[in-house]
Amino acid sequence: MHDIKREALQKHKEWKGKIEVTARVQVRTNEELSIAYTPGVAEPCIEISKNPDLSYEYTRRWNLVAVVTDGTAVLGLGDIGPEAAMPVMEGKCALFKAYGDVDAFPLCIRSKDVDDIVNTVSLLSGSFGGINLEDISAPRCFEIEKRLKQLCDIPIFHDDQHGTAVVILAGLINALRVVGKKMKDIRAVVSGAGAAGIAIAKLLVSCGLSDVVLCDRTGTIYKGRENLNVAKLEIADITNRNMLKGTLMDAIVGADVFIGVSAPSALTPEMVRLMAPDPIVFACANPIPEIMPREALKAGAKVVATGRSDFPNQINNVLAFPGIFRGSLDVRAYDINDDMKLAAAYAIADLVSVEELSAEYIIPSAVDLKVGKTVAQAVSKAAKNSGVSRIE
Amino acid sequence: MHDIKREALQKHKEWKGKIEVTARVQVRTNEELSIAYTPGVAEPCIEISKNPDLSYEYTRRWNLVAVVTDGTAVLGLGDIGPEAAMPVMEGKCALFKAYGDVDAFPLCIRSKDVDDIVNTVSLLSGSFGGINLEDISAPRCFEIEKRLKQLCDIPIFHDDQHGTAVVILAGLINALRVVGKKMKDIRAVVSGAGAAGIAIAKLLVSCGLSDVVLCDRTGTIYKGRENLNVAKLEIADITNRNMLKGTLMDAIVGADVFIGVSAPSALTPEMVRLMAPDPIVFACANPIPEIMPREALKAGAKVVATGRSDFPNQINNVLAFPGIFRGSLDVRAYDINDDMKLAAAYAIADLVSVEELSAEYIIPSAVDLKVGKTVAQAVSKAAKNSGVSRIE
Repeated sequence: MHDIKREALQKHKEWKGKIEVTARVQVRTNEELSIAYTPGVAEPCIEISKNPDLSYEYTRRWNLVAVVTDGTAVLGLGDIGPEAAMPVMEGKCALFKAYGDVDAFPLCIRSKDVDDIVNTVSLLSGSFGGINLEDISAPRCFEIEKRLKQLCDIPIFHDDQHGTAVVILAGLINALRVVGKKMKDIRAVVSGAGAAGIAIAKLLVSCGLSDVVLCDRTGTIYKGRENLNVAKLEIADITNRNMLKGTLMDAIVGADVFIGVSAPSALTPEMVRLMAPDPIVFACANPIPEIMPREALKAGAKVVATGRSDFPNQINNVLAFPGIFRGSLDVRAYDINDDMKLAAAYAIADLVSVEELSAEYIIPSAVDLKVGKTVAQAVSKAAKNSGVSRIE
Repeated sequence: MHDIKREALQKHKEWKGKIEVTARVQVRTNEELSIAYTPGVAEPCIEISKNPDLSYEYTRRWNLVAVVTDGTAVLGLGDIGPEAAMPVMEGKCALFKAYGDVDAFPLCIRSKDVDDIVNTVSLLSGSFGGINLEDISAPRCFEIEKRLKQLCDIPIFHDDQHGTAVVILAGLINALRVVGKKMKDIRAVVSGAGAAGIAIAKLLVSCGLSDVVLCDRTGTIYKGRENLNVAKLEIADITNRNMLKGTLMDAIVGADVFIGVSAPSALTPEMVRLMAPDPIVFACANPIPEIMPREALKAGAKVVATGRSDFPNQINNVLAFPGIFRGSLDVRAYDINDDMKLAAAYAIADLVSVEELSAEYIIPSAVDLKVGKTVAQAVSKAAKNSGVSRIE
């Protein structure tokens, strides 16, 4: 770990930035200038002014995504500010390019005010084909996303929520195949009610998993509990239908699935032993999971996933966001809806063939280039079928 | 001209964007990911959070300029909106790269409100090393620039003002050498009191040209005239010391220099004949100049410049902005001040050697790569000497 730290610092110094803006045209002669710049450039300008949709034909907008943060919830580091968040955002942009062939550009906003962030992004939305929100703390992230979705005519996608939810769902689809259970029959407990936990619970419900219990630090979330923010109030309406009250320990008894997006060591071996037969444990806290895979397996877990690349079954958002945006951009979707997220999750899950599928291989490798392409196709199709695409 | 229009439209369709965001790092293996992304990326984040200046070491900020517009004054097209302005902004970014090796990224804002534009840019200023304002209509552009200069700790440069002024001044320095006059002895008339005209008048005064008369559509601008906006009020204080009242025709009598940044045919041959001996005529309206060079010369003009590449002496901002930003970024200047602009103008002028200098060659070619490098060096030096650089 010490070596990685030192090497990362050294490499970042050498790179002098992980992204670069390059020109796709030659502007070295007066002839070239007269076409790419004045006077020729006036023509595409005039065409776009008559029909703004042509910005997708004559400029880079068709392939351009802004990666936007305010630096309030960066990795496990918390609120480190916009400048300090930039190395993560640049890294994200590099991943967008490598796995989705998307031009992503990082914008770090010097304000934590919801209005400021919403205004800044919506005022810039004509320059991009999509917006990827990143590392914005809960519950502000929910309001920001919601308002931007209302204001903008391009997809708004908070990756910490939906990217995570899609990959978790993909893993869960295959984990259930391994243990021979069905989504509609099981009970899942989600530990952690931040951006990821809320989005996971919502997507699981959308996918037909009717019995989901979400836990925050106080315990289970249920309708009528005190001190619930807007996002938790909303989730209380659609989850925990049995009004289970108590701690995570109470909720875990008899549960088929544990999904942790919370804190190290939140799940004990004893709790795993209290789960239903063939329990599934997704311990995604980073870098130290809710329970170490070895311990979970020893306590009886049948399938274990984490966020780490050094254990089997890595839940990594790289499996989702490049393909989701690629697929959305390809059909000029004006939204990324649940249908598209579900399609992405199934596409990821189905990349693991019946022959390959096992407790130790429920999800493709994060660095498999096939994933982005397959997800993109599924997402494009779902966008068309659900009526949010602007291209046939 | 018809061919250029058709070709420009066709090429823009083929290019699908004139800029691209590329990755400078490989993220194809888990090892590479662990350095460029999690967990390694936490290290530069932590370092920057302790000292935000390190964003210039560990991210692309050191080389990154935002090209910002609201689409209100694009080319000769006027207020065509942010989406329609994008082809020009992308072209500008391509020029930044080709002539200054600067990573420039276009941001078109969906608002004409000064507060909106100021807020958006200042909230994003932590992501960039400089801001190039572009094609924002006067007089809003003056207030926007002024407020951003107060709010931001990076250079703010409205190219339509200062880029134009620098290149005009460069040309004028050499034109005066050709006719054997001195800056301090002459009288110049500037036609057009928009962004460029105001900035030209200011820079000429800074350069020691004490007798400048600025004319708008109403006539000469003088202290106490009615209907002057804030920018014109300010310029009335430092120009037209003889309180010359009347039209452009009245002002031109006996003037040594005419500088037009106004409208086609604003200057007649008759007016040229009323100027002082060996008159200098810069007719920079685009694409149709205030007077055609042939007519101006026939009427007695000694040196004629235009904004066009098909006549001698092209006043083209490409000579200035790439080198000015390159030089500013190289020393992490927090401002682009008059000293730096004057240094840029003299650097451009001095690139024409005494042997080469003639009435038909007062300014280097816009596509000469030497210019950007030379301007950058001069600007870096001026930034250091005037105390606005953050690097020795």
